[in-house]
Amino acid sequence: MDSRSNSVNRNTKKNDDDNITQREEALYSVERIFESKEVPSWQNQLTLRAFCVSFILGILFTFIVLKLSLTTGIIPSLNVSAGLLGFFFLKTWTKLLEKSGILKQPFTRQENTVIQTCVVATSGIAFSGGFGSYLFAMSEVAAKQSTEANNAFNIKNPSLGWMIGFLFVVSFLGLFSVVPLRKIMIIDFKLTYPSGTATAHLINSFHTPQGAKLAKKQVKALAKFFSFSFLWGFFQWFFTAGDDCGFASFPTFGLKAYENKFYFDFSATYVGVGMICPYLINISLLLGSILSWGIMWPLIQDRKGHWFPADESPSSLHGLQGYKVFIAIAMILGDGLYNFCKVFGRTLYGLYLQFCSKDEGAVLPVGARPSPPEPSMSFDDQRRTTLFLKDQIPIWVSIVGYVGIAIISTITLPHIFHQLKWYHIIVIYVFAPVLAFCNAYGCGLTDWSLASTYGKLAIFTIGAWAGASHGGVLAGLAACGVMMNIVSTASDLTQDFKTGYMTLASPRSMFISQIIGTAMGCLISPCVFWLFYKAFPDLGTQGSAYPAPYALVYRNMSIIGVEGFSALPKNCLTLCYAFFIGAIVINGIRDLVGKNKAKYIPLPMAMAIPFYLGSYFAIDMCLGSLILFVWTKINKAKADAFGPAVASGLICGDGIWTLPSSILALVGVKPPICMKFLSRNGNTRVDSFLNS
Amino acid sequence: MDSRSNSVNRNTKKNDDDNITQREEALYSVERIFESKEVPSWQNQLTLRAFCVSFILGILFTFIVLKLSLTTGIIPSLNVSAGLLGFFFLKTWTKLLEKSGILKQPFTRQENTVIQTCVVATSGIAFSGGFGSYLFAMSEVAAKQSTEANNAFNIKNPSLGWMIGFLFVVSFLGLFSVVPLRKIMIIDFKLTYPSGTATAHLINSFHTPQGAKLAKKQVKALAKFFSFSFLWGFFQWFFTAGDDCGFASFPTFGLKAYENKFYFDFSATYVGVGMICPYLINISLLLGSILSWGIMWPLIQDRKGHWFPADESPSSLHGLQGYKVFIAIAMILGDGLYNFCKVFGRTLYGLYLQFCSKDEGAVLPVGARPSPPEPSMSFDDQRRTTLFLKDQIPIWVSIVGYVGIAIISTITLPHIFHQLKWYHIIVIYVFAPVLAFCNAYGCGLTDWSLASTYGKLAIFTIGAWAGASHGGVLAGLAACGVMMNIVSTASDLTQDFKTGYMTLASPRSMFISQIIGTAMGCLISPCVFWLFYKAFPDLGTQGSAYPAPYALVYRNMSIIGVEGFSALPKNCLTLCYAFFIGAIVINGIRDLVGKNKAKYIPLPMAMAIPFYLGSYFAIDMCLGSLILFVWTKINKAKADAFGPAVASGLICGDGIWTLPSSILALVGVKPPICMKFLSRNGNTRVDSFLNS
Repeated sequence: MDSRSNSVNRNTKKNDDDNITQREEALYSVERIFESKEVPSWQNQLTLRAFCVSFILGILFTFIVLKLSLTTGIIPSLNVSAGLLGFFFLKTWTKLLEKSGILKQPFTRQENTVIQTCVVATSGIAFSGGFGSYLFAMSEVAAKQSTEANNAFNIKNPSLGWMIGFLFVVSFLGLFSVVPLRKIMIIDFKLTYPSGTATAHLINSFHTPQGAKLAKKQVKALAKFFSFSFLWGFFQWFFTAGDDCGFASFPTFGLKAYENKFYFDFSATYVGVGMICPYLINISLLLGSILSWGIMWPLIQDRKGHWFPADESPSSLHGLQGYKVFIAIAMILGDGLYNFCKVFGRTLYGLYLQFCSKDEGAVLPVGARPSPPEPSMSFDDQRRTTLFLKDQIPIWVSIVGYVGIAIISTITLPHIFHQLKWYHIIVIYVFAPVLAFCNAYGCGLTDWSLASTYGKLAIFTIGAWAGASHGGVLAGLAACGVMMNIVSTASDLTQDFKTGYMTLASPRSMFISQIIGTAMGCLISPCVFWLFYKAFPDLGTQGSAYPAPYALVYRNMSIIGVEGFSALPKNCLTLCYAFFIGAIVINGIRDLVGKNKAKYIPLPMAMAIPFYLGSYFAIDMCLGSLILFVWTKINKAKADAFGPAVASGLICGDGIWTLPSSILALVGVKPPICMKFLSRNGNTRVDSFLNS
Repeated sequence: MDSRSNSVNRNTKKNDDDNITQREEALYSVERIFESKEVPSWQNQLTLRAFCVSFILGILFTFIVLKLSLTTGIIPSLNVSAGLLGFFFLKTWTKLLEKSGILKQPFTRQENTVIQTCVVATSGIAFSGGFGSYLFAMSEVAAKQSTEANNAFNIKNPSLGWMIGFLFVVSFLGLFSVVPLRKIMIIDFKLTYPSGTATAHLINSFHTPQGAKLAKKQVKALAKFFSFSFLWGFFQWFFTAGDDCGFASFPTFGLKAYENKFYFDFSATYVGVGMICPYLINISLLLGSILSWGIMWPLIQDRKGHWFPADESPSSLHGLQGYKVFIAIAMILGDGLYNFCKVFGRTLYGLYLQFCSKDEGAVLPVGARPSPPEPSMSFDDQRRTTLFLKDQIPIWVSIVGYVGIAIISTITLPHIFHQLKWYHIIVIYVFAPVLAFCNAYGCGLTDWSLASTYGKLAIFTIGAWAGASHGGVLAGLAACGVMMNIVSTASDLTQDFKTGYMTLASPRSMFISQIIGTAMGCLISPCVFWLFYKAFPDLGTQGSAYPAPYALVYRNMSIIGVEGFSALPKNCLTLCYAFFIGAIVINGIRDLVGKNKAKYIPLPMAMAIPFYLGSYFAIDMCLGSLILFVWTKINKAKADAFGPAVASGLICGDGIWTLPSSILALVGVKPPICMKFLSRNGNTRVDSFLNS
């Protein structure tokens, strides 16, 4: 149930080797093409029509996300759809007004970005609100399906009032924690945020002024691969009747490799993401895959009965799954903490220098590792950075906002969940910014948001702390909600800030749009859920049309969680320590050896992600890398100019397909065919069964 | 068990629009590149080393073909493999000799073609000898598995002596019937023979002299698509454990369409073939598919119980299968007969003119329909035609050869099969040239050899004539053998003559090579079969390692056959008449409306082929057409120059893959995975079965 962000770009490779000549650069510069177009002031980027469109799209996407989380629990990202539909809605609107002659303000790409970020903020609540996971896991329906902890003290049934209140006090925190991250992630670290850049490229392509020849060609390439990717998604759909069916379960390297999650899943999205991400990320992902699924998990599996109980189900955190989840978390935390400390230290040092010399230019923390700022910036970068830094949001706004809301929610939350104490909440809010940083940073590198993983961490720590006898199960679930809201918002909205950066949207207008979007989401999501809850009385029971599968999973995790870290399988904690320290050491080495050698040392953050998820997307991304690598070898100029457009087309086409596919699921149209993969012996058995 | 010919070209589109300028033409001319290379005399094209290599390859391919026909009964064409392996063997040989300094004669493409045609002739016998079909159907093992006609009079067990004798008296007839067809099919009709041209292109590319820039690029394109196609074949193989598994059973347009054989089977071969064949052929194939599998068969299927017995098995000729086979045969016969008569009439008229005016130039019959000879020939065509016509094989040689061997075999065959009378054989030999013409013509248009279909026709006619009481079952099977040998050789060797035409190999050297190859085949095939027969005592019994599935099928057909045409299902004969006449009428219209309008009227011959086989290869070929069409629209010059190379690469790569895949089958390595396609309900059932 990890929220995956898709969506479009073109300029992410500029932190790599930049040996194109001045003339070539001018040719490939997006902002040169847009130079003639005036960027509206941040107030003018926020229009009433934009929020009307956002409201309509917000309701649409909330329906889709909720339906999906209550049926399968797998929610694709909808931010490409948001960008595209936002464009089409408002373009039609402005065209109509233009014809009738009453159009006052032209439709700009900045306004488009504002709509996109508002819709993402709205529909994001439908995911992070946990209506299919932690929130519904508190209900009586979910509790009755478990043998433990189903007393009244560990149950809280959904009700419109407390849900809206809960969402309002927790959802805005992520927003304020994003604001200081924004500059570090995008300007200093120059993180790619593949989906965000892809969306930006899409929006830019829609608004490209006439006459730009290369841009037109790029739009054409984008359109071609967009159609291909969309049709490919459509084609794949027909073969996905049932679990483990279709191209997404294709055992490309054999069934044995498939069991260990080594396969190419034919996802156009991740091939595109791989084309946008630097080589080092993709190689790190692959190394992590091999280390975990190729070596460690099979070795641990062999110790079944010794290291963990042999009769444990594969999804139980007492078994192998426990190693996967917690080692990944340890490594991510190690890397995140290292970078957080480094940036924090440099920020303090920068502030200190500023106080000493009053030199304003040194304020910005020098984001070190992924790529230090280049002395000679490209025209695009210069213009974007200037505009991105023009409309500042003062740091005190975010601090006051964060602390203010944290105080309100520390007071309010224990009234909603009696099991959750005020000191639990304070602890969460102290650590949340670190985790938000980790998630935004990881998402910027790899496009994966691990919000639900951090949520699980909260279940375990807070649940165990509260203790079984004090309603720890419910406390854990509530803590999960608080945590997920912060980290999920952090990654989603930093992603959007990247889009804004590349479309010259003002951070201030984006921030206001996000606040409005979040507020809309806090109202829309519970209402839509309430509709489902009242319309389908068997909601949440297994075998019904809306089984909400992850609600039970979360409840069970929380039941284990209250037993604390002692419930973890043998040696798991030791391994977690080792990988936590390992991540810090690798980062230290990367900083010590210098930039030239560092590019051969893998990133622990990227390595950790496949630990838990499997290798399939790493293989997709490596394929994308390989395609780009071969293309660059054959024709560097063409690859540089069209690579990002092709990648964006692949990502967006697949992304948009999720909309019709969700609608098909909503109206109950199921795919007709299952493409199944059986071993030879299995096939013989099935054939004899079918013929009998 | 239809023998499918694969294999490579570049110049087949020249009978289409030829509006490339003189300079461009010179650029794309293959023969200009080879102009500097002397063509050896026909005697020098025949070398001892060529026949040594052919002998070794002949044994190799005979093993493969026999193994396949005794296991699955599906035999792919091996003539690409023959061309390629011939090249590698002899290239290594000549390189070694060159290094040791004792090379007397360089290795030429003509010699390569000689090897290729010799190996095809040798391994062709392994197919047309019917060791997995009609010949083994005569044995006691096959007879015992059927309830009818298993008395001694309808049984003839294999024995080395009579098999070699039988093959020697029937196999050379096809060879002599090909000789007069050669010129009509290749020079006058300019038929494409996709496999033959593809092989020629491959051979040409191997021998391209250094320094030819475009040719080098073409070879590169060929090599690229060759590798792709080979690797794709390899990849597909892993998923074919079991029947209806793998990409070849991919229900691209849904399961309902798949049941009616409408699907894209991911065959690189037929996509390539579609790129080489003219658009009209591909459209005709598709029209035929829609008419038969889309309209007629479902309608007839609805009349189950009325038009044919409801309890008939799907493969029974008393049922729907009867309609498919016989309507297709009727249409093919109608088209073939029309064209045969037309060509025969024009030939007689040409001869008459020659006698009147003594004008030698008018001797050649003017092949009318597919494309009348152009007044302005390209350089390639001029040079090829000149060399193709230089070394004539006098018409009296073929007539004397045919009649002589026909007399010998009319005397000999009744001694081998007492049930087959001399008048049966004479009737076969009278009609055989017409059918050989039909098959060679159809194969030239579409790349499909329908030898086994014509063989089935012989089973029905001769079997019924001999009558059940006079051992008609055995007589039918023997007649099938005689017929199949002639028509199969006719198409295979005309295909080879096309290769020879395009590589400037002398028809005389080809002919001699074919005679030697056929003689080798007549000895090698029975010996190899004998080895199998003695080594595996349970050969031919169902469930054993060598079930020879088609032996039983052929025997059952013959058992039905002796009941005569009255055994055909209701209205089948009426429909056959209608389609027979329809084919003649369409051909008449095509000739009447003139060349410009005729290109919009489909060819009955091409339409009839999917009647029996299904639509999947028509869809592959239409995709090939579509690719070429789009390519031509985007860049005509490039499509013209590289289209045939790409097509050839696709055909050859897949063709060569059959060799390792056959070897894998021989050593008993089976694919590990089955990619299965189930309906949603079927999948639910299978899942519950697998989980139980």
